[in-house]
Amino acid sequence: MDEERTEAWWARRAWALLSAVRERAPLVQCITNLVSLDIAANALTAAGASPAMLHCLREIPDFTPRCDAVYINVGTLSEDWLPSMRAAASADRPWVLDPVAVAASGFRMEACLQLLALRPAVVRGNASEILALASSSDSSSSSFKGVDSSHDSGEALQAAKALARSSGAVVAVSGAVDFITDGEQVVSASNGVPMMQKITATGCAVTALIAAFVGADPSDALAAAACALAIFGLAGEIGMESAKGPASLRMHLIDALYGLDEQTVTSGVKIALVP
Amino acid sequence: MDEERTEAWWARRAWALLSAVRERAPLVQCITNLVSLDIAANALTAAGASPAMLHCLREIPDFTPRCDAVYINVGTLSEDWLPSMRAAASADRPWVLDPVAVAASGFRMEACLQLLALRPAVVRGNASEILALASSSDSSSSSFKGVDSSHDSGEALQAAKALARSSGAVVAVSGAVDFITDGEQVVSASNGVPMMQKITATGCAVTALIAAFVGADPSDALAAAACALAIFGLAGEIGMESAKGPASLRMHLIDALYGLDEQTVTSGVKIALVP
Amino acid sequence: MDEERTEAWWARRAWALLSAVRERAPLVQCITNLVSLDIAANALTAAGASPAMLHCLREIPDFTPRCDAVYINVGTLSEDWLPSMRAAASADRPWVLDPVAVAASGFRMEACLQLLALRPAVVRGNASEILALASSSDSSSSSFKGVDSSHDSGEALQAAKALARSSGAVVAVSGAVDFITDGEQVVSASNGVPMMQKITATGCAVTALIAAFVGADPSDALAAAACALAIFGLAGEIGMESAKGPASLRMHLIDALYGLDEQTVTSGVKIALVP
Repeated sequence: MDEERTEAWWARRAWALLSAVRERAPLVQCITNLVSLDIAANALTAAGASPAMLHCLREIPDFTPRCDAVYINVGTLSEDWLPSMRAAASADRPWVLDPVAVAASGFRMEACLQLLALRPAVVRGNASEILALASSSDSSSSSFKGVDSSHDSGEALQAAKALARSSGAVVAVSGAVDFITDGEQVVSASNGVPMMQKITATGCAVTALIAAFVGADPSDALAAAACALAIFGLAGEIGMESAKGPASLRMHLIDALYGLDEQTVTSGVKIALVP
Repeated sequence: MDEERTEAWWARRAWALLSAVRERAPLVQCITNLVSLDIAANALTAAGASPAMLHCLREIPDFTPRCDAVYINVGTLSEDWLPSMRAAASADRPWVLDPVAVAASGFRMEACLQLLALRPAVVRGNASEILALASSSDSSSSSFKGVDSSHDSGEALQAAKALARSSGAVVAVSGAVDFITDGEQVVSASNGVPMMQKITATGCAVTALIAAFVGADPSDALAAAACALAIFGLAGEIGMESAKGPASLRMHLIDALYGLDEQTVTSGVKIALVP
Repeated sequence: MDEERTEAWWARRAWALLSAVRERAPLVQCITNLVSLDIAANALTAAGASPAMLHCLREIPDFTPRCDAVYINVGTLSEDWLPSMRAAASADRPWVLDPVAVAASGFRMEACLQLLALRPAVVRGNASEILALASSSDSSSSSFKGVDSSHDSGEALQAAKALARSSGAVVAVSGAVDFITDGEQVVSASNGVPMMQKITATGCAVTALIAAFVGADPSDALAAAACALAIFGLAGEIGMESAKGPASLRMHLIDALYGLDEQTVTSGVKIALVP
């Protein structure tokens, strides 16, 4: 990175990437969990991307090569969908992995490790997921608690850096502050509101958004992930101004994501290099 | 058609069909894509129909014959669901096909052509989908772009007429103006707002509504399709008055669909014969 | 029951159970129909529980034993999901069954009877479903009409008592007034508004909530079911104050469920012993 990445640089970058998504409408194939289909597709559409929820193994050779990016999420993993995930991850398109509840079972951990070997551009999870994936912890880990995070994202930062170096992926750890790393550089994104945790599949939706940003500009996955996380969080902050609970927050967040303008983005995103 | 189908005739017809749906609560079996389940079921319920999302092959012999109509949508087609689609389409009930992203793969195109041979009452798609289906274009078509339409609906009208004549189905092409044809007559429906394109699966939802209208009165599929499209678009127009973005539009659209009264429908729908 | 269960006792009990859900965040595995995934997960999260939508047979040995409760719903039953349902129901966790549209097919009825033999803590259905399940009525029953109830819940009370005695489960019959019985005691819960019937999968969502309440306190499934039904209905009543139709009711209901406080719950729930 030759130029200095100040917060102002990141603000301009976030707006440039969102604008690129809106202009290019990247086609994002999503093989994601059944709970997240609605919110992920609507978040992608609101951001300007073109989602395609295809999961049939027989369609992947025809369809996936045309996509700008692929999003794979194991939240409702099943034996019949896993081959499609592997095939789509192998289609030579930039792709993003959400290892939801990776420690839920040995089967799931093994599936995620196999997927990780197919070189995702970005892996995003909460602290528990990134810690578990990094340590390939076995399924009897007593600290695991469903799909919610019971660890702080800062706590997982060292694990994320190690995972990024071993996998070659950018690794993003979501939390009160998100950390994004390529194994060397670490960037923080500090947008969002706590109530977003009370909407099912917001994590899945923001990972889909990362895939759209990567699809719009595959040259810098670290920037794509950081900016997508910050912009989604910013939409949550704006949505929170009108929200009366998690369901209205969800609606206002999607509306806000659709309506973001340059002034709001450049003054609102909070991205910074972590020294 | 002996009587003259003026715009006033269509307005009365639209209200009569919506009233029939509310009175008879047609049971509509939906084998639809996983993304659309929520919005399609809620749109059907709000309109007064009774949705049933059953896709298990073993249930079709018992269940499908009791239904008033069947809705089949290939948006998340898979090898295990296709036999159920074929069985439900063969159950001697009026049925409606949504060939979502038909050109996404050779597998999908073949599946849709097979389904088309089972004589749907109505096929509804966007211009790209109808053009692709009509020309049985191969999967390498360079013009295809995901599930969004990149063609104008008027452009696809000739293809729709040919498809209607060859298949025996009423064919509806959605767009800024919708065109509905039985191969001879062409009707336009001009309700709706552009932002409806920014809600995932609105096309799927309106096709489900067409199935409900066909179920409530199978005698005239052309009228059922035109009126369902106009009424759904009208609900979108009313919803738009309160919407601040695509997510609130979705909510207000469903609320509006539920609350439509005679005055609003008869003064609001815009259906006309195309000379 | 040694202490007298007055309405005031029930009001305190309802608040105590909701507080227990919020404090303990019970992990609830849901193998539920594809239409209900979004609303069930969001209702659980809003209530304070931790939903996990896992349905893969290979994950159940690792994952299900860690759960506080299991929720099984046959709304979109398929041959490949049924073994997972049986495995999860056999994992020695308290579990709750929603026999959606049990009379839709012989396959579905047989599946529900098999599940019933695996001793759910609670079975919740509408009057038609409970009547059909209790009588093991065959699939040709002419009275069946999709997933909506065409019977009064009081009408099904005798069937519910018989079913509770034969199965060992608490049986809840939803309707304008809900009845909950262990075969001896009968409790009524009278919260809710009619428009909740116009939101797809509210029945599925409230059964998920029953599972969360059972998970937070497995000692009294009758109380858990009655209080979950009353609290969900109360959230609907509060939501209805701001609703303009079924879609906004859905949003306001989830928001209200999230925001319920002690005063609102203890003064609002309407639970009573039926003499």
